[in-house]
Amino acid sequence: MAEFSIIDRYFKQKHAYQSNINLGIGDDSALITPPVDQQLVICTDTLVAGRHFPLSTTAHAIGWKSVAVNLSDLAAMGATPHSILLAITLPEVDEPWLDEFCQGLFACCSSHQVELIGGDTTQGPHLTISVTALGWVPQGQAITRSGAQVGDYIVVSGQIGDAAYGLQHLQHPLQHRLDYPTPRCELGKHLLGLASSMIDLSDGLIQDLQHILNASHVGAMIQLEHLPIDKALRSLSFQEQWQYALAGGDDYELCFTISPENYQKICLEETIPLTIVGHIESNLGLRLTYKDKLQSLNFHGYQHFA
Amino acid sequence: MAEFSIIDRYFKQKHAYQSNINLGIGDDSALITPPVDQQLVICTDTLVAGRHFPLSTTAHAIGWKSVAVNLSDLAAMGATPHSILLAITLPEVDEPWLDEFCQGLFACCSSHQVELIGGDTTQGPHLTISVTALGWVPQGQAITRSGAQVGDYIVVSGQIGDAAYGLQHLQHPLQHRLDYPTPRCELGKHLLGLASSMIDLSDGLIQDLQHILNASHVGAMIQLEHLPIDKALRSLSFQEQWQYALAGGDDYELCFTISPENYQKICLEETIPLTIVGHIESNLGLRLTYKDKLQSLNFHGYQHFA
Repeated sequence: MAEFSIIDRYFKQKHAYQSNINLGIGDDSALITPPVDQQLVICTDTLVAGRHFPLSTTAHAIGWKSVAVNLSDLAAMGATPHSILLAITLPEVDEPWLDEFCQGLFACCSSHQVELIGGDTTQGPHLTISVTALGWVPQGQAITRSGAQVGDYIVVSGQIGDAAYGLQHLQHPLQHRLDYPTPRCELGKHLLGLASSMIDLSDGLIQDLQHILNASHVGAMIQLEHLPIDKALRSLSFQEQWQYALAGGDDYELCFTISPENYQKICLEETIPLTIVGHIESNLGLRLTYKDKLQSLNFHGYQHFA
Repeated sequence: MAEFSIIDRYFKQKHAYQSNINLGIGDDSALITPPVDQQLVICTDTLVAGRHFPLSTTAHAIGWKSVAVNLSDLAAMGATPHSILLAITLPEVDEPWLDEFCQGLFACCSSHQVELIGGDTTQGPHLTISVTALGWVPQGQAITRSGAQVGDYIVVSGQIGDAAYGLQHLQHPLQHRLDYPTPRCELGKHLLGLASSMIDLSDGLIQDLQHILNASHVGAMIQLEHLPIDKALRSLSFQEQWQYALAGGDDYELCFTISPENYQKICLEETIPLTIVGHIESNLGLRLTYKDKLQSLNFHGYQHFA
C-alpha cells in the first residue's frame, strides 16, 4: 500500500471541528487563519516504541498517548488545543494495527475537538511517532514556567506516580494511567489569569518542578505527606512511594504555582482533584519534608539518555 | 549527557530573526504572535537514516536536508518560512556528530532567517528526524495544488533528476544536490498571484505532477526534449535519463502551472533557471512526447513503502 493510500484510508478525518482550517491534509502544507488577538502555541513530542511505551502496548493506546502527551504540553501553557500534525515511521504497513492506532489517535483528538491537519508517513526499522500540536491562547496570557512567586502554593492535579507504578506492574489497573494519560486542557485553560507558573509532569515532580524553580529564580518546599498518591502506592515503603510520586514519569498531570488568594478563585465545572503539595520560597533549591522533618532523598526523574 | 544539557548546548540558537516569537525553546510550548492578515502555513517531513539519506551522509548534510525538505514544502505554497520544531531520535549522544548536525541545520535555517523554536530530543535505536516548519502567507493567496487551468504552462525550476543520479553515483558532484537541496523559497513567494498551482518535487515529476492533475481535475502533456537535466544525465540512454528526471526523487525543485500571460511577468532578482516542460490539457491523464511522438514509459516515482 502506497503512502497516499494509507493517508486516504486512515488519516483523513471526517470531522471538521475548527472552522479556521483553510486547508488540511492533501497539499504540501496545511493552512490556518489565526484567530484574532490570540497567540499560537506549538510543541512537539516523540514516542519511540520500547522506550516511551512498552512494546506490548496496544496500537489504540499508542495512538491515544501520542496525541495526549502533546495536548498536555499545550495545557501547561493554558492553551486551547486546535490541531495536530503526525509524523509516523512504521516498520511495515500492518492494516489492523494502523486501524486501531488511528482509532486511539482520533479518540484523543475528538475529546478535545482537535483536527489532524497534516503529517508524514514513512517507513523505517523502528516504530517512532512525532506529533506536533497547535493551540491558541489569548494574547499575553500564556502561563509559562517563569512566574512563580514566593508564597505561592504548589499544586498538582490528579494523582502522581500512577503511570510509573503501572509501568512496573503491567496488568494492574494503574496501567491504564500509563497507557491513557488525560491531558488537563480544561484545567490549564481555567488557570489563565490565576496561576503564576505551570508545567506538565512528564519526567517526575522533582525534575519538572525544578524547571519552574530555575526559570522563576525561586526555591520550594514540598510536604511529602500531602502527595496525592494512589492506594496501591500507599501499601509500599515511604521510599518506594516517594520514588514513584516524585521521580516517576508519564503522569501528564499539571503542576502549577498560584497565590493563596487566586487559589480560592478556582472553580471548575468538571471535578479534577487538586492538591497543594508545598509552597514557593525565596531560598533556592528544593526541600522535602515529612511531617515537618526534612528528608534527604536521592533519586532523579526520567533520564532521556540513559 | 541529559536531554536538557543537549538542548542547552546544541539547540539554543543565538540568532533572533523573527520578532514575533514570544517564547522559543525552554518551556512546554513555543509562543508566536501571528502577523496581521497572514495565514499560518505548516508542514512536517521525516528523514529516516538509510531510507531518506544514505548511511554515509555527513551529519552536516543531514542537518541541512532535514530543514531544507520542509522549507521546500512551505515554498510550494508561496509561503515565507518563519520557524521550525525539531523532533530527533538518536541512538546515542555523539557530541561531534551533534555539533556537525547542528551546524548544517542552522546553516539552512540562517539562509532563510528561520528560527528553531522547540522540539524533542529522544533516544531510540534508529536515527530519525522529523522537522515541523512554519511559515506565513498573505491571507487567501497561498498557491495550492488545485488551481491548474487548461492552457497553463507547466514549469520546473532548476534541474531534475540530479539527486537520483547522485544517489546512484555517490562521490559524483551531483551528490551535492542529493545532500544539500535548495528550497526555492524566494521563487515560491515571487509566484504569489502568478502561478495557478504548485508542488515541490520530492517523489519525481510524474508522481508529483499527478497530484496537481488530480487536485485540479485536468490532464497534461510533457515534452521530454525540454526536461532540464544535467550534462551527466545526457550521456545516458533516453530511457535512463527520463527515469532519473521523471521518477527520481529528492530534487526539491518547484513544479508550477502558470498562464502564458503571467509567465511573462516573472521577474526574479536572483537567477533561478525556469523551464517550460509542458502544458495543461483538458484530457485527463499525463502524456509524454519526444519531438511530437507520444512515448509510453513505464516507471513510477518514489514509493514510500516498498
